[in-house]
Amino acid sequence: MKAGSVLVLGGARSGKSAHAEALAAASGLERVYVATAEPRDAEMGERIAHHRARRGALWRTVEAPDALEQAVAAEAAPGRAVLVDCLTLWLSNLLLAGADLESRCRALSGLVGRLPGLLVLVSNEVGLGIVPENALARRFRDAQGRLNQDVAARADRVVFVAAGLPLSLKGPCE
Amino acid sequence: MKAGSVLVLGGARSGKSAHAEALAAASGLERVYVATAEPRDAEMGERIAHHRARRGALWRTVEAPDALEQAVAAEAAPGRAVLVDCLTLWLSNLLLAGADLESRCRALSGLVGRLPGLLVLVSNEVGLGIVPENALARRFRDAQGRLNQDVAARADRVVFVAAGLPLSLKGPCE
Amino acid sequence: MKAGSVLVLGGARSGKSAHAEALAAASGLERVYVATAEPRDAEMGERIAHHRARRGALWRTVEAPDALEQAVAAEAAPGRAVLVDCLTLWLSNLLLAGADLESRCRALSGLVGRLPGLLVLVSNEVGLGIVPENALARRFRDAQGRLNQDVAARADRVVFVAAGLPLSLKGPCE
Repeated sequence: MKAGSVLVLGGARSGKSAHAEALAAASGLERVYVATAEPRDAEMGERIAHHRARRGALWRTVEAPDALEQAVAAEAAPGRAVLVDCLTLWLSNLLLAGADLESRCRALSGLVGRLPGLLVLVSNEVGLGIVPENALARRFRDAQGRLNQDVAARADRVVFVAAGLPLSLKGPCE
Repeated sequence: MKAGSVLVLGGARSGKSAHAEALAAASGLERVYVATAEPRDAEMGERIAHHRARRGALWRTVEAPDALEQAVAAEAAPGRAVLVDCLTLWLSNLLLAGADLESRCRALSGLVGRLPGLLVLVSNEVGLGIVPENALARRFRDAQGRLNQDVAARADRVVFVAAGLPLSLKGPCE
Repeated sequence: MKAGSVLVLGGARSGKSAHAEALAAASGLERVYVATAEPRDAEMGERIAHHRARRGALWRTVEAPDALEQAVAAEAAPGRAVLVDCLTLWLSNLLLAGADLESRCRALSGLVGRLPGLLVLVSNEVGLGIVPENALARRFRDAQGRLNQDVAARADRVVFVAAGLPLSLKGPCE
């Protein structure tokens, strides 16, 4: 796939990032990695380093923990694969910053299907456990579910990843 | 599909209710919405209002937060689509009321496959997160998993919904 | 299937154990059940008893709450089906005992695809809920996700079970 948009959905440690990177690599296009993680603590810092090491030198990295809509719109270009990893950390950053989740998510999902080149978006499915006791966690879970639905509705392909294995939910298989 | 039973399974904010409503609408049958939610707080009240607004005037709504078995049996009729939204809130009501979960779930799942018309049941998958620390939550999770298995075994079709997209687990695809 | 390896993945109370047992039974081979559960409390004791009763007398049971790698290697034989139920409890035992998770998981997953007979491994998907607040739970979730990926990469078949229904993620369907 050399143009269009793909949503890669999965759980924590499901292999979704590696799968998304493989999709971008398989395109043969120039690769841009849009990182939404903020290394707030040692645990997160380690995870970021682990991901960077796996990607290697073939990627240009852009940091966009907040202004993701602008970064994606600016980087998208014909002949280029832009990978966003991930919508879940971005949403979490927005929530902690007290941003207007609804309008921001609308702006982001509105870009899907309208940009040149290949766009690969990684996101977590977080709604398959018990209802969280924490009200903020419930709000996050709701916003994440709605964002995933909106992006999925506009994406050309949606893939669910479990134990490193992809399952096609929408669009042509690889 | 104009007769038979469908279980629509999914996570929180997965689009499972909208999918279930679309299935009932596609049947072309007279539609009855059996609501199990009790507006215990503002958060729940908002969610109920949101769901009602989406359905519009084409549905007759029956409230059955407790006596769901009776409501389903009474409403089922040839040429009619009965949608139950959802088994998870019903189970949660039963648990809080100290009801006999096992016999109530057996009564409910025993109806599946034996009623006239189309029956669409919405339920949450809640067992794909970390084991809850709360014993009541673990009991709920177990009861929900067993109920889902029992209903799925008797249903003609089972659909898993993620990010608004259906994945067939059993029976013919749409 | 009379030889090779199958990973059966699913949530709590998803019917994954029953599905794994059915796979082993369908092989027609001599059956060994490798149990990793430790009856630490009444809740767990009950669950173990429930599983034993379902299996009946056709199984030989081996307890391996810790030294699972050795038990699997020792029991595997041509013409025999070895079922491990489950990797999640084993990992939890290791974590509580302060074991070196990485090397132990590598040893276990390294066996998959290299043993005679049929090997069926049951494991939980635990990463599809909200991020746990508890650091130990996050560590467990990460280790479980990595172990599932490593085992899935080496297994001949991977099946995801929801509401008692299998969905093939890898390999030939039944």
